Amino acid sequence: MVGTVGIVGLGLIGGSLARRLVSRGVTVVAWNHRPHPYDEAEADGIRCKSALAELMNAHPDVLILCNPLKAMPAILRELRPLLADHPDTTLTDVGSVKGMVREQVVAAGLGAWYVGAHPMAGNELSGWRAADPHLYDDALWAVTVDETTAYRRFFAVASLIVEGVGNRIIVLDDETHDKAAAMISHMPHVVSTALINELTSNPDRNVAAALAAGSWRDMTRVALTDPDRTRAMVEEDALNVEVLLRHMAARLNAVADQLHTGNQVALSEFFAAGDPFRRYKASMKSADEFTKQELEIPEAGWQQTLLFSARRGEAIVGFINPRQAVVQQRPAVQ
Amino acid sequence: MVGTVGIVGLGLIGGSLARRLVSRGVTVVAWNHRPHPYDEAEADGIRCKSALAELMNAHPDVLILCNPLKAMPAILRELRPLLADHPDTTLTDVGSVKGMVREQVVAAGLGAWYVGAHPMAGNELSGWRAADPHLYDDALWAVTVDETTAYRRFFAVASLIVEGVGNRIIVLDDETHDKAAAMISHMPHVVSTALINELTSNPDRNVAAALAAGSWRDMTRVALTDPDRTRAMVEEDALNVEVLLRHMAARLNAVADQLHTGNQVALSEFFAAGDPFRRYKASMKSADEFTKQELEIPEAGWQQTLLFSARRGEAIVGFINPRQAVVQQRPAVQ
Repeated sequence: MVGTVGIVGLGLIGGSLARRLVSRGVTVVAWNHRPHPYDEAEADGIRCKSALAELMNAHPDVLILCNPLKAMPAILRELRPLLADHPDTTLTDVGSVKGMVREQVVAAGLGAWYVGAHPMAGNELSGWRAADPHLYDDALWAVTVDETTAYRRFFAVASLIVEGVGNRIIVLDDETHDKAAAMISHMPHVVSTALINELTSNPDRNVAAALAAGSWRDMTRVALTDPDRTRAMVEEDALNVEVLLRHMAARLNAVADQLHTGNQVALSEFFAAGDPFRRYKASMKSADEFTKQELEIPEAGWQQTLLFSARRGEAIVGFINPRQAVVQQRPAVQ
Repeated sequence: MVGTVGIVGLGLIGGSLARRLVSRGVTVVAWNHRPHPYDEAEADGIRCKSALAELMNAHPDVLILCNPLKAMPAILRELRPLLADHPDTTLTDVGSVKGMVREQVVAAGLGAWYVGAHPMAGNELSGWRAADPHLYDDALWAVTVDETTAYRRFFAVASLIVEGVGNRIIVLDDETHDKAAAMISHMPHVVSTALINELTSNPDRNVAAALAAGSWRDMTRVALTDPDRTRAMVEEDALNVEVLLRHMAARLNAVADQLHTGNQVALSEFFAAGDPFRRYKASMKSADEFTKQELEIPEAGWQQTLLFSARRGEAIVGFINPRQAVVQQRPAVQ
């Protein structure tokens, strides 16, 4: 069911994806803004092209933009006339913020071709040299749609991820995705950076660094990744990150007040408030296998059906046919 | 040079330490408030005693309190008359907050026997069952002294750690230790807990939990440890944690403001401010071996000499004689 896949950008995310798809028997054509990875990529079975027009001549069923977000407007401009000649190619991307990408895609006149995607995969490395098909092992992708999305476009991307990449997906609207990504990634990146800034400004920073053990290492690992990349990611999701940073600041000031006044009841409540997440993690750990069930996808309102499924903690792990998905139920945070 | 060691409390920290010392040929006598670990501990070569008085009859050169902090006052009361009969036994402990323990020790009339210690070792487990001598592999200990500390007491503890346990030490006053521990452990534990509280209160918590990947997992791992133990640790270091939480809240609100107004210069500065810590981590990673040198320890002002050594990023890794230490120079945060 998975046809030819086009990949734009052979960095960590795009290169890993290309190598994984090829290793699973999918035909992959690729273009990179500089040809330096081409010799190795060709040796891996990736068919590298010298221009986007040449890439489109291979008639990819799905074209995945894995380029940096700052290159997006120029690439979309170049793709506009090419995709006009390829109405059956579906356009997707792997950016970590979905609302902004859709705006750019729509501005380029390519909204009708587009479905958003965001694989929850990555590490502190970057570039083709770090590309590793195992980066996608057991990964979950968010696939984002809106009310204008044609179901066949969604299904092209969803079946590629489930069958081609062998991953799970949840379907969201852009706003729900960007708020959730701010919660579990973008805002925590700022918090981690604030921690290393606090240590750097501490007069006894060398003593503190010497004493640092596992908790410090874990909480500051993401602050060691390329700060420019982190800043760009945070700026793209600025509204959602701003709200969460103010919430976090209020929580930390509240604990400071409770420590100041010795309010043990409030402190106990603070340390217990996360128990639903602790129970969720414990049940994830103890689950041998997650329950699977079938989900009918209606023609009208399919976006809502799939969003509600995601909110129940379900993820799509397969398709019996285009209107019947297999979903896996994971524990809920409750 | 290492004589008999007495250990009070065979939990994760005390049990691991006892097992490590025995495996390195040190004679260990131990007492636990309940005898349930005794069969296994005896099989490991740890000589278990049914009462503190019996433990003291083994004439330990160093007695290490590894009991929970809440048991400290009662144990110190019981030890007072026993240590009066054993003036040569040096008393130490492994608590994560040093100022409060010293206050309790002094209040019990045992200040003259005491040197503080805090091994930077631990994990999310607890109890004898989790005891593992490898917990101390390559660990650094903070040893805390004040102007009244007798050098021979300090040397008894320091040489036990360096030769008996095979670890490194830095020497600090209680306040410097407690501020640094608040910086790299106690405050970050609150931040981690605030993160899981924020997710738990998020209406789309199941979507967020599904999207959570490496950065979230790392930043919330410590929030999954026993919240009561974390609360106790934070309350014991309340003054220092309070100050750092207010700093962190101010940093997060400042970034929220910068995102709100789109102040890219200030955002760039925020993301670059931690560069000294990033360079420190990079140089720690690339260092093949750390430079070693000798450090003379004077009779007068030895506390200051050793504190300054710690502030330069040095750690004691051995003793040539009681007045000559071998220190290892680690990179500085600069």
